[in-house]
Amino acid sequence: MIRPVSPDPGPRLGPGPEFDRIREIARILGPRARGLGDDCALLPDGDGALAVSTDVSVEGVHFRLDWITPAEAGWRATSAALSDLAAEGAGPIGVLSAITVPQRAADGDLLALSEGIGAAAAAAGAPVVGGDLSTGAAWSIGVTVIGRASRPVTRAGARPGDGLWVTGVLGGARAALEAWRRGDTPRADARRAFAHPEPRIAAGRWLSEHGARAMLDLSDGLAGDAGHLAAASNLRVDLALDAVPVAPAAIAEAERLDLPVQQFAAEGGEDYELLVALPPEFGAADVLEFERDCRVALTRVGSAARGSGVRVKLAGRSLTLRGYDHFR
Amino acid sequence: MIRPVSPDPGPRLGPGPEFDRIREIARILGPRARGLGDDCALLPDGDGALAVSTDVSVEGVHFRLDWITPAEAGWRATSAALSDLAAEGAGPIGVLSAITVPQRAADGDLLALSEGIGAAAAAAGAPVVGGDLSTGAAWSIGVTVIGRASRPVTRAGARPGDGLWVTGVLGGARAALEAWRRGDTPRADARRAFAHPEPRIAAGRWLSEHGARAMLDLSDGLAGDAGHLAAASNLRVDLALDAVPVAPAAIAEAERLDLPVQQFAAEGGEDYELLVALPPEFGAADVLEFERDCRVALTRVGSAARGSGVRVKLAGRSLTLRGYDHFR
Repeated sequence: MIRPVSPDPGPRLGPGPEFDRIREIARILGPRARGLGDDCALLPDGDGALAVSTDVSVEGVHFRLDWITPAEAGWRATSAALSDLAAEGAGPIGVLSAITVPQRAADGDLLALSEGIGAAAAAAGAPVVGGDLSTGAAWSIGVTVIGRASRPVTRAGARPGDGLWVTGVLGGARAALEAWRRGDTPRADARRAFAHPEPRIAAGRWLSEHGARAMLDLSDGLAGDAGHLAAASNLRVDLALDAVPVAPAAIAEAERLDLPVQQFAAEGGEDYELLVALPPEFGAADVLEFERDCRVALTRVGSAARGSGVRVKLAGRSLTLRGYDHFR
Repeated sequence: MIRPVSPDPGPRLGPGPEFDRIREIARILGPRARGLGDDCALLPDGDGALAVSTDVSVEGVHFRLDWITPAEAGWRATSAALSDLAAEGAGPIGVLSAITVPQRAADGDLLALSEGIGAAAAAAGAPVVGGDLSTGAAWSIGVTVIGRASRPVTRAGARPGDGLWVTGVLGGARAALEAWRRGDTPRADARRAFAHPEPRIAAGRWLSEHGARAMLDLSDGLAGDAGHLAAASNLRVDLALDAVPVAPAAIAEAERLDLPVQQFAAEGGEDYELLVALPPEFGAADVLEFERDCRVALTRVGSAARGSGVRVKLAGRSLTLRGYDHFR
């Protein structure tokens, strides 16, 4: 199931300064690294693979504790890591956390944050099996997730002609961020999208069992993540933004910024929905079955073609989308 | 091989504020956590176990970049995590790093640090299989290691009458720290002990295959780590400090502090040697075989008895040792 790893072509990622750094690291590591650039590391295990991912959420970069509570920060960091397992079609078997606690932290904040980690892990059906603690200048939540996949789905298997689909709706997390950044209180649904994302574990497994050819989770924005899929699968992605499913909370925020709401949603990051390439024959009946089984929407937003890069169209016009760069 | 996990008694750790926090977290997590408090999380895998550990090294807490180079910081953080696999008798199969890079970082520092991570992983025979990047106020290196153990050795299996043994020599890392803290340059061997620890992977596997009953790595100081073993194995540990093998660099530093050198060595942390409980019949011929196979010393420093806690004797007198608390 796991492709041969030697010779390793290095990480095939889309453009962006964060990804330039990952490419440089891969170059320095040479043959000492293996399989970098996917949502998870895949290690052969019996008939399938172990999937392992590690994610770090830093106070002031990924979250602020005047925006969300410590328990929400713990939930969010853990769900973001679990989302990488979802994107591989893996089921979680364990969660570890490495938490850095500022000296100024109030009594109880570490416990509240740990409670959020435990709640997110339990919701995904995985126990917390270990961790580490340190002091430091700011809160930092490192989350490592371990899962098993009988048919892991990387970013690399899409073929020209495949449809590109997303789960759920996009733009909710960005709607909350835009509100906080101008000093407002976000709508409850936007706040929930940012603070309490749901990793699409069941959806990822369903898709891996129903022919998904390539998959990743939406953390860098639709255009950025489509760029990763295009680079990894060595093809071009055409996005039809008119079709992008939009979170209701995004509408008013997009109007404030004078942006088409689909563009607002597609440029937002950290929705933790799945972007998946499915074969052309995947149709309406399959969508109904998916939505009945997984209780989340599945919407076709584009297609794969020969070539490279990402082309975006909205209302018949070509468009260049901003990415969402965590590495600011 | 893996003990039943339900009901989980919670982490059985020795005394200390860092360990109080881990106990509190385990209490909050309740049944959502499993098997906390050992060097690694153990997940059933075929006939053996997967061993997974995550460790975070924070600039200004665990290391300073005016003391060691970025490449050394990467080596040290990775070897410290690999040492947890050694302590379980596991062989490493993959390393992941989650690196937080300060905005002020010089070009090249991230690559040098990654080079150190790759070198430590390669020295242990494991590829770097993934990671994450963020910005933040200070350097932070989260390292996750994955290994396999056919006969994992936890901290919990020691029995009254067992001998307590350590690999290598102790006090070298502390000798470097003491020199740096007073503004001096450490001796080369002390610096190497701190900046370039060698995880005892081969020794850990050898010991697990030759009857080791309980094992952990020395990161909290001999007394602190013996306290963890005593708590996990539900017995008392008697340490005979006169026998403690001392790093040559520790001698002059101990004299400066007017401490017996064995006490200086036993109170130092982060030597990343192994502390292992072996059955009473483990004898001189076994030691010779170990030292021939693993190219490192093995020294008996105490024994296990009925009771609880740690008793320390030096030159016939009882002694209370300071621990080494990372969570300062």
